[in-house]
Amino acid sequence: MVAGIEAGGTKFVVGVAKATVLPTARTVIPTTRPAETLAAVTDWLREQGPIRAVGIASFGPVELDPASPRWGHITETPKPGWNDCDLAGIVGEALGVPVGFDTDVNGAALAEFVYGAGKGMRSLVYVTVGTGIGGGLVVDGRILSGAGHPEMGHFYPRRSAKDWNFIGACPYHGDCLEGLISGPAIQRRWGARLSDLPDDHQAHGIVADYLAQLCHTIFALTATETIVLGGGVMATTGLLDRVRSRANAIGGCYFPGRARQTIVAPQLGSAAGLVGAIELGRRAVK
Amino acid sequence: MVAGIEAGGTKFVVGVAKATVLPTARTVIPTTRPAETLAAVTDWLREQGPIRAVGIASFGPVELDPASPRWGHITETPKPGWNDCDLAGIVGEALGVPVGFDTDVNGAALAEFVYGAGKGMRSLVYVTVGTGIGGGLVVDGRILSGAGHPEMGHFYPRRSAKDWNFIGACPYHGDCLEGLISGPAIQRRWGARLSDLPDDHQAHGIVADYLAQLCHTIFALTATETIVLGGGVMATTGLLDRVRSRANAIGGCYFPGRARQTIVAPQLGSAAGLVGAIELGRRAVK
Repeated sequence: MVAGIEAGGTKFVVGVAKATVLPTARTVIPTTRPAETLAAVTDWLREQGPIRAVGIASFGPVELDPASPRWGHITETPKPGWNDCDLAGIVGEALGVPVGFDTDVNGAALAEFVYGAGKGMRSLVYVTVGTGIGGGLVVDGRILSGAGHPEMGHFYPRRSAKDWNFIGACPYHGDCLEGLISGPAIQRRWGARLSDLPDDHQAHGIVADYLAQLCHTIFALTATETIVLGGGVMATTGLLDRVRSRANAIGGCYFPGRARQTIVAPQLGSAAGLVGAIELGRRAVK
Repeated sequence: MVAGIEAGGTKFVVGVAKATVLPTARTVIPTTRPAETLAAVTDWLREQGPIRAVGIASFGPVELDPASPRWGHITETPKPGWNDCDLAGIVGEALGVPVGFDTDVNGAALAEFVYGAGKGMRSLVYVTVGTGIGGGLVVDGRILSGAGHPEMGHFYPRRSAKDWNFIGACPYHGDCLEGLISGPAIQRRWGARLSDLPDDHQAHGIVADYLAQLCHTIFALTATETIVLGGGVMATTGLLDRVRSRANAIGGCYFPGRARQTIVAPQLGSAAGLVGAIELGRRAVK
């Protein structure tokens, strides 16, 4: 049996799985202080029976460098108590099993690659557009990492001609993509969720344009086969089609692999986080 | 002995190497029609003695999908005679050896990763800023590919406040990066090479800003450790420092791995193309 932990800022989703990565049991534990939350998580996991490994897909920023003494830590977060928390170390020690560890978005990317929209493909980028905007790239089954993990939400799109007034909500970059069209940024500038704005509201075109620019840039820099757009904002009716159409227009029929490049919805929905965590655990089995 | 061919639009640089990838002999053959050029290339290689494999780093666009019947072809190029040319097939058949094949910029990225600025690193992006602008990503010794190869020059930077008049020279995208600051675009808009413009000319700041935006976007999307900026335009005095400084400002001290992220000059200079081609050949040895 392998365990997975989707570690989020408001809740931890925890599950175990047997032959496949589909959880046979799962629970949700609110995110409070690390000691309390992690004790509840590991207590629940112990009750499920013996496990061989645990995977953690965590909110960030996190340290992913296997050579760093801080591997598996949450690093600089304003979330009370979680700054510099040794998430992988505490969980691994409490359970006495190997730990797989990555970001929440990389976990979801891995899940979609192996079990969802990326089945049969060689490469996939998963982007979540919600409270924040982030993305992860999986190529040939491997999660791309470098000096750290990607922070795709902090790319700067060109401002739309209709959209010059909002200065942006990102404390680091102002009007980067996350500062312009994350869920909270949309709420702040237009006073509602995107899905609650009327069909003819200009927000729909602006959000689609910026996401299409992200997709174009992902194709230009990584040549990935598919881009999976998930997260709460993407639940807006018609948004995915608008993004596709705009990305096509921006691309100008140029990329050599364009016939095989697609922009699609997730297949695993909100299950991707836990499935990805379990897959990270499965890969950590010694 | 392993052979390498750097296949360019104006010349083919060809060499052979023994124990290392440093060429022990090299020659330059002008690019005319495929039959003529490739006969000269393979004749010269045969004269060097028995070889075990050949690597080709080619101008593009090219087909890199190993599952495609057109793998190793130059695809849609306006260059007379070269459209749909089976470069890898013709060379491999003439020499009777296995062929390694990739783009010229991926070859240079591989060379810098293995033997140059990337030594000891896990990931590197090589960008060339010259007649065109292109980039390649190498992670853990593997060249990233997806549906096709990256086309990093076709990312759209935000236009600088001082730079609204030029519509851009890219036939597909207008004012994408390549359309704005490739060597020919610089020549067209300012009537000179960047290195020949006076130090206080606004072109220096504009070019640095757009390249810094590319670097920021590469860090955001790939988290790579280092970015190597090469090509003729980068020979401009002071440009690399300007790009670094501007990229730092844009980044806002945000990326988790920023302490390990650098923007550097190539170490192999113009040798990178041939060295990369030989390395592609070395990897094709059966």
